[in-house]
Amino acid sequence: MERALVIFSGGIDSTTCLYWARDRFDEVFCITFDYGQRHRVEVEFARIIAERAGVKEHFIYRIDLRSIGGSALTDERMEIPERSEDEIDSTDIPATYVPFRNGIFISIAAAYAETRGIYNIVGGWNAVDFSGYPDCRPSFIEAMERAINLGTKAGAQGNGFRIHAPLMHLAKHQIIALGISLGADYSYSISCYRGGEVPCGKCDSCKLRARGWRRLGIRDHLLDRLMREGKI
Amino acid sequence: MERALVIFSGGIDSTTCLYWARDRFDEVFCITFDYGQRHRVEVEFARIIAERAGVKEHFIYRIDLRSIGGSALTDERMEIPERSEDEIDSTDIPATYVPFRNGIFISIAAAYAETRGIYNIVGGWNAVDFSGYPDCRPSFIEAMERAINLGTKAGAQGNGFRIHAPLMHLAKHQIIALGISLGADYSYSISCYRGGEVPCGKCDSCKLRARGWRRLGIRDHLLDRLMREGKI
Repeated sequence: MERALVIFSGGIDSTTCLYWARDRFDEVFCITFDYGQRHRVEVEFARIIAERAGVKEHFIYRIDLRSIGGSALTDERMEIPERSEDEIDSTDIPATYVPFRNGIFISIAAAYAETRGIYNIVGGWNAVDFSGYPDCRPSFIEAMERAINLGTKAGAQGNGFRIHAPLMHLAKHQIIALGISLGADYSYSISCYRGGEVPCGKCDSCKLRARGWRRLGIRDHLLDRLMREGKI
Repeated sequence: MERALVIFSGGIDSTTCLYWARDRFDEVFCITFDYGQRHRVEVEFARIIAERAGVKEHFIYRIDLRSIGGSALTDERMEIPERSEDEIDSTDIPATYVPFRNGIFISIAAAYAETRGIYNIVGGWNAVDFSGYPDCRPSFIEAMERAINLGTKAGAQGNGFRIHAPLMHLAKHQIIALGISLGADYSYSISCYRGGEVPCGKCDSCKLRARGWRRLGIRDHLLDRLMREGKI
């Protein structure tokens, strides 16, 4: 019986990871961080997605990263960047970088996993899109895996943790294609940094998402749902 | 102007680190975690110690590790072990281990440090006493340093973080001697896992502390204060 824990924001990438993990492991757990992000609406939708995917347990963990600051995603006095499609491919670190967010999330996920005898941690880190975020690089993920194996009881006793980053080298349209091939439904995955139920279409996250679906040549599940519901 | 951030519980070890950092850096910041520990009283006393030491900023960070569980320090249904002095030198991991606590603390400390331009992180990890805790080993601390340098904007841009563990190879009486040589006052440092203002004398932490002062041949500052205040 092999278990996996998916670090699950409810966006396109982590929804794909959820379906990837469901296909590969016997039991899938999810952890979602309610960390003071502007787009907190995603947390509520994450609940719906996890339930529809039939996960074993969905742990919503509240942690205040707003008091630490330093990011346009947690500080409403900072502007959410609006860049062109060319600009979002830049490797400059954008204002939406949240200081060491993935280090914090992976650490807490490891603690939760350890208490439940889960030794596989899955996350949607990606070095193709958003290559500006340092905490999405393979070398960082490997360093965290090493730290967890050295710093936990389970690791010290030989139950090696593995961190899986199945999307690391995929472009957005490939991520969506992978998810669809595994039965993923993206109707409730929002992505937008601005936190509305209807995406703004202008932030980096909306732009990357739109390009992904366009390259794939099919209409975004989310837009389909919003149209059906008369919201756009 | 070099700044340091001390991961500061308010116990003997981190109080020593605070004085060590004060001696070595131009500005000292402290971060204390109020994480759902039974011995939460230490957080209040940490405030007093940091103020007396004249730190630049003392950030008290609330994080709920109780909901993650798996430790006698956060789960009141679990017994705090009472072991003999010989037994506390065992390298078995005790029930007071908190899953990946130091990984979580160091990650949050790194995020906070990054937003304030602090590149030195100091902590009282120790591989002599409590050698059973995997997240106190030098190899773990080195792995976390590597992860922070890979996973933060500051690290990626070449502002290397350093994690300092000045107590790593010292026995408790040497730690106290070091602190006293730097002007540390341990009157408000509590240590006891049980969370009373008067230490229980029976938990591992009380036992280690008592042995340290005994080996040093001087009376514990805390007991002195409690006697002066008529509390023991």
